Order: sequence, then C-alpha cells, then structure tokens
Amino acid sequence: MIIVGENINASNRSMAAAIAQRDADFLQDIVLREVKAGADFIDVNAGKAYDSDAEQITAIEWLVETVQEVADKPIAIDSDIPAVIRAALQSYKGDVVMVNSITAEPGKLASVVPLVAERKARVVALAMGEDGIPDNVELRLAACETIMDYLDKNGVTPEQVLFDPLVLPISVDSAQGFVTLKTIEQIKSRFPRSKTIMGLSNISYGLPNRPLINRAFLSMAVSSGLDAAILDPLDAKMMSFIKAANVLTNQDRFCKGYINANRKGLIVD
Amino acid sequence: MIIVGENINASNRSMAAAIAQRDADFLQDIVLREVKAGADFIDVNAGKAYDSDAEQITAIEWLVETVQEVADKPIAIDSDIPAVIRAALQSYKGDVVMVNSITAEPGKLASVVPLVAERKARVVALAMGEDGIPDNVELRLAACETIMDYLDKNGVTPEQVLFDPLVLPISVDSAQGFVTLKTIEQIKSRFPRSKTIMGLSNISYGLPNRPLINRAFLSMAVSSGLDAAILDPLDAKMMSFIKAANVLTNQDRFCKGYINANRKGLIVD
Repeated sequence: MIIVGENINASNRSMAAAIAQRDADFLQDIVLREVKAGADFIDVNAGKAYDSDAEQITAIEWLVETVQEVADKPIAIDSDIPAVIRAALQSYKGDVVMVNSITAEPGKLASVVPLVAERKARVVALAMGEDGIPDNVELRLAACETIMDYLDKNGVTPEQVLFDPLVLPISVDSAQGFVTLKTIEQIKSRFPRSKTIMGLSNISYGLPNRPLINRAFLSMAVSSGLDAAILDPLDAKMMSFIKAANVLTNQDRFCKGYINANRKGLIVD
Repeated sequence: MIIVGENINASNRSMAAAIAQRDADFLQDIVLREVKAGADFIDVNAGKAYDSDAEQITAIEWLVETVQEVADKPIAIDSDIPAVIRAALQSYKGDVVMVNSITAEPGKLASVVPLVAERKARVVALAMGEDGIPDNVELRLAACETIMDYLDKNGVTPEQVLFDPLVLPISVDSAQGFVTLKTIEQIKSRFPRSKTIMGLSNISYGLPNRPLINRAFLSMAVSSGLDAAILDPLDAKMMSFIKAANVLTNQDRFCKGYINANRKGLIVD
C-alpha cells in the first residue's frame, strides 16, 4: 500500500493557524512524524480562506518549501486551482510529485491536465463529473473513462493516474460500501496500468466509533484492489491494520514487513 | 453474519476437564455468555480422548443436554464420527441443528450424510477430500462439487449446506489469503442457494498479534461473501468488527444493529 499522509491540511484549524503564522517548526515536526510512521507521500493543502489568489499562492509556496526542507518524500499537491498547482509544482524540486486532484469536468481538465503533462506528475482522478459524486458504479466508471480519454489525448499515461472511486456515507445509503468496492474492482479491471487511491473517512460519517468502521472498510478495499490511501499515518491502529492487510493480500512476502514492524512495537491491537 | 460460538470445545484443557467432571455450572455459564454476546449456534465438541466409543457417546449426550437446558439457540455438533453425531442428534430436541462437518471423502459421506438427510440438518462441508487441504482454489471447488453431487443424490438440499472454503496459514504461503477469499467467491457463484462458513484463526498461525490479522481477514471474507463464522463470541473486538462489516456490506439496514450495539456499550475499538 502507498500511504499519502493527510496531516498538512489547512482544513484543520491548528494547521491553518500554523500556516498563517508561517510556523515552520510546528509543520516540520508533523511532517517528520508522518515520514517516520510510513508516509510515502506528504499531502500539502494550504486551504482556501484567502483574500486573493496571490496570498494563496504565497502560502502554498511557503508550505512546499517548508515540507521539502525536512522530508525526502514526494509531495501531493492538494488543490484544484491551476494557479496554486502551478506555483506548488515550481516550488517543489523533487522528481516524483502528485497532483490531487482532477475530475471529469471539462473546464478543470483543460486547466490542470497541461500542468500534469508538462511535469509528468502523478495525478489523482476523482470518479465524478459536473453533477457531483454519482451514487452508482456505472456513472463513476463513466467519469473515469472520460478522464482517461482526455488524459490520453493530452500526453498523460495511464501509469501516472491514481483513480479515486470515491466514498459516500453508509449512514445515508447502506449500499455505498459495495458501490465503492465494486468501483475499485471495475477500475482495476478496466485500467490495469493505473492505480487506485481513496480517502476512507467519509464512509463512517454520522456513525459512532468511526475509526473501527474505517479500518474494516480499509481491509475490504485492499482486498478489492486498493493501491493507495490518503489518511493519517500517525493513527497507529490504522497503520497496523494496513500492515495486516498487506500480509493478507500477498503484498508482504514472507510477512517480513509485518514481523519487522511488530519487533519495532509498531503493531498495536 | 451467522455466528457459531466455538467455546464448548474439549480441545481447550479447562473445558475438557469440565466435561470429564460433568461440571454443568461451568459449561452453562459459558453458553449463556455466548448467547448474550450474539451466538446464533452453539458448537459442541466433546473431544476425542476417550477409551471407548461408548464413553464418547455418553459425553456428547450429556453435553447436548447440558447446553439445551439453558440455551434456546440451535447447536452445531462438532464431530466426524457417525455414532457420536447420531447420539447428539437424538439428544437434541430443537428443530434446527447443524452437523460440523463432512468432507469429500467417500467413506465419511456414506456414513454421515444419511444422518443429515434424515434429520434435515444443516451441514458444514469442508472444501477438501482424502488428500488434505488443497493449496489452490480449483481443487477446493472440485471437492465442493463432489460433496454437492453426493448430497443431491442422497436427499440433502443446497439450502442445508454451509461450505467451508478452508484456511491455511499465510506465514507458510503468502498466497493463501487470496486462495480462501477467491474460494468463497467461487462457491457463492457456483452454489448460490448454499451458504459459506469459516473458522478464522488458522490464517494467522505463526504470526504475532494474531487477533489483528484475524479481524482484518474477517472483514475481507465478509466482503467476498462469507455468511457465517465459527469463532469466540466473547471476543468483543472481533464481534465489534463483525458488526462493522455487516454495516459495510449492507447487511444492517440503516445501521440499526451497529448503532444499538454501540448504545449497549458492545462496540469496542
């Protein structure tokens, strides 16, 4: 499993304050903990509450430079605003980089895809179009087809793509667990050269004991073919579960990763 | 999910002693706790360490009577010895009863299936024949076919059958997680009128933190179509996980079972 650490995100209030105050120590401490816990990518989200595009651009530039000062892991640029993505890509010096995210909306494809193509970046493609998240597998797959057609015509290879099947709360519609799992299976079958990625927590919205539901869903999704997850790598129970899921899906030969993690005290029950 | 409580089993030393001493209080206390925790069937296993068949028969008769004195749940008779199964079926007064288990071995089919047919019992059918547990999906499915052919010719309906896909340790062969999951999917597709059942714990043999692996595997198996599990219902973490898996696979409409269990303090993380 590829882990995209979600912690550097301005939708968290203390993180937004740290970004506003340019508190590098606070941010870098969290980044180092994400890396130590096993993050393969560091997601960076500078937030949207700015008076001008110029301010937002200054914030993402600072954020990207602050993160890469301490981490040798690639970043995932969490924005759908072309000017912000462009600024972040220019600030980031590494080879591998991810743009998070695009959808099947024509305007967004036209403005973001050229940046992805030019930088040969990985890109998270959400299985939705202009009408929001479809409640069924067919329309989510149709959105993926639209995106892949556009990418193919614009110089982005299937290997650069991580499709997000998307997750709606099961407290609202009991069928949504299966909808997401079947969407993963269909994407893996239809686009074997691409990967799948997902944020988990939406599934448990409105229910008690959300982390338990999230972990159970994670292991189902891994079994259906999920390649990557956007989550909090400092959640030791979740990370233990991911290591168990890796073992169970033959992604951890001779169980070495699991046994080593256990020796280091990283497997918690 | 159908829960078969595994606690009344003479392979556990204190349980064997309680059976030998005919300690009804000890056994009935555990049975009541299994029922309270959500067991749908009470598995009863009188053990094999007896000097004669007659002793073993006396033990299972006492065990069945002791269990049904306090529990209104059906029992699963855990034996492959025809005389023991016959004695247990005669002692048990309920309508619904399960025999655990048969395999594709011709001799065992010939001796146990008439008892199942006569009592219209449910029967656990292990996906194996004379050569032990196959290491691949094809041979496990072939064993299921052999069993179903025999049952069909001998008056047992597909609805009476719970197929056990069987589990080999992933510490020995990393592919075995997928072998079991794919076997479940194939059984569900090939025998849609039958159910699937599994004991989990073999999967984690030889690894540290076994309950974590078992829970992750349980949720994958439920997602693949597992209908029933033989396990310890007093394991609160496992039972919480099963309730989460029920929610995620649309087996708990409006999440009512999960929310009610949480109100009663039964969901632990």
